[in-house]
Amino acid sequence: MAEINHQILLASRPTGAVSAENFRLVETPLPPLVEGQFRVRNHFLSLDPYMRGRMNETKSYTACQALNEVMVGATAGKVVESRNPAWSVGDTVTAGFGWQEYGTTDGAGVKKVDASRVPLSAYIGCVGMPGATAWYGLLHVCKPVAGETVVVSAASGAVGSVVGQLAKKHGCRVVGIAGGADKCRYVVDELGFDACVDYKAGALEADLKAAAPSGIDCYFDNVGGVVLDAVMADMNAFGRIAICGAISGYDGHPMIMANPRLILVSRLRIEGFIISEHLDVWPQAHAELGEMVASGALKFRESIAQGLASAPVAFMGMLKGHNFGKQLVKLIP
Amino acid sequence: MAEINHQILLASRPTGAVSAENFRLVETPLPPLVEGQFRVRNHFLSLDPYMRGRMNETKSYTACQALNEVMVGATAGKVVESRNPAWSVGDTVTAGFGWQEYGTTDGAGVKKVDASRVPLSAYIGCVGMPGATAWYGLLHVCKPVAGETVVVSAASGAVGSVVGQLAKKHGCRVVGIAGGADKCRYVVDELGFDACVDYKAGALEADLKAAAPSGIDCYFDNVGGVVLDAVMADMNAFGRIAICGAISGYDGHPMIMANPRLILVSRLRIEGFIISEHLDVWPQAHAELGEMVASGALKFRESIAQGLASAPVAFMGMLKGHNFGKQLVKLIP
Repeated sequence: MAEINHQILLASRPTGAVSAENFRLVETPLPPLVEGQFRVRNHFLSLDPYMRGRMNETKSYTACQALNEVMVGATAGKVVESRNPAWSVGDTVTAGFGWQEYGTTDGAGVKKVDASRVPLSAYIGCVGMPGATAWYGLLHVCKPVAGETVVVSAASGAVGSVVGQLAKKHGCRVVGIAGGADKCRYVVDELGFDACVDYKAGALEADLKAAAPSGIDCYFDNVGGVVLDAVMADMNAFGRIAICGAISGYDGHPMIMANPRLILVSRLRIEGFIISEHLDVWPQAHAELGEMVASGALKFRESIAQGLASAPVAFMGMLKGHNFGKQLVKLIP
Repeated sequence: MAEINHQILLASRPTGAVSAENFRLVETPLPPLVEGQFRVRNHFLSLDPYMRGRMNETKSYTACQALNEVMVGATAGKVVESRNPAWSVGDTVTAGFGWQEYGTTDGAGVKKVDASRVPLSAYIGCVGMPGATAWYGLLHVCKPVAGETVVVSAASGAVGSVVGQLAKKHGCRVVGIAGGADKCRYVVDELGFDACVDYKAGALEADLKAAAPSGIDCYFDNVGGVVLDAVMADMNAFGRIAICGAISGYDGHPMIMANPRLILVSRLRIEGFIISEHLDVWPQAHAELGEMVASGALKFRESIAQGLASAPVAFMGMLKGHNFGKQLVKLIP
């Protein structure tokens, strides 16, 4: 039993891009458990774009991350000590312990998961919050119909990769948007999308038109900005856009919509959503996604940074699209 | 029986603002009726913002207005000659005969209306297309709940005035946005809105906050541009925005959305609609609105230009907000 817990706190709020100085790594002694508590050794920490929003003090959809507190985040791990009869040493669990090696808890917000058919890390990825996000945004906001064309940005990422594979399962033509030839190749060759547009190749509008010759019916937007503008120009009448993220604006870049008149001209429905407000669908989403992972029907890829200390750099890289697949930090050697 | 029909044709397409040179007034002899036809003397022509879009050749939601053809538009009038047994001289009708004094038809697209309880002109106003637009956009797109705050722009106009009165009937707090103190006074004192913001007074954001202290749940948008931006900043979580028009951009002014990130932050639903694609609701909308007009529960105001030749100037004025209430042209002396 280790006696020291490493934690990363929010040291200061970023002005513009996140920097290493915004974080502080601390060592905290682990207190002895009291009756009813148990302790989890976190194996994986999930790094997600929403965390960037929490670092700001401005109005957002949730309370901001407090200064000098452990950074928020989903974790997957194993119970290593227990004074609670409902939880046994060796249980595999997910929780929201944040950027630290251990979680000490009475069980609130902790969930046992079966890591025999689905890898433990997937429970904070495509069978976790990102998976539920993809499932809800595609099926409940976009509502695609077989034969329609679905476009998703950040297509090789934790959410986008699930959106595209689900849309294929529903009989749609699926076009990804990703940064770089490697990611695009992966999206088409490994994930089975019909096409993928490399937004860094310099011909976004033309490439998108070529990839979606019948126009676009649904767009699952993770990035906002000029990519959203380009997709909007190709939307068919009665198209639906689910606004899930706006990563292009997270570092304070001004982000406008270039031609909102298209909302009227093309009779679009644009809807923003936050998956934590739709917890009722998580069980169904996770049951379906878990089955797909177990059967090999849903593929995923992970970018794994090693050790808690690497989390800030991995997080900054993810905001710039340096990750390739779900960004995780492995917290055990 | 007059033998000459005056008509206004689209002579050229505007580049930027509409000018008188874009129109041409012509005299056309009225041909004798053939069996099955009847002739309508148009009493009123409706001038509506959508016509501006039709004058362009660029992509829009309907076919553009052909050059050297009679400008499109809704009309209300009286049958003056008939060789069709289903239509009698003296019948009051609405139709889409466009910018001309007479319509000659076999009855397609013509509708008999009862002008005894509701004034004839109202059938191309609050009991016509503009009324159906308000009814559908408010009740089927915004879907306000009693107690919520509803904001509508162009509040004294043909659509906005109906939106606000319907929203009051549904138990909402209603805030109008209009240009000038006179219009604002009318909206509050005559139409019964709870408040009205004069967007020309130079303090749109602050005045809007004061008028909607609990934030905005629904916005019925007729104008787009900076007014839409200001309203979006005050929208409550899960707010709904019906995009009905974008008159601020009709003359080719570039029109952006300043902060689309709010769609995600406030989980907004923004939806564009075109009332001509929802003809199924017109009978119900018109039945309800007609009853409200007949009983005095729905008030309306008209700006009436005299004579067909005045239509271009009246139309250009309407696009600048010079009208006060529904803009009509009276085609009979």
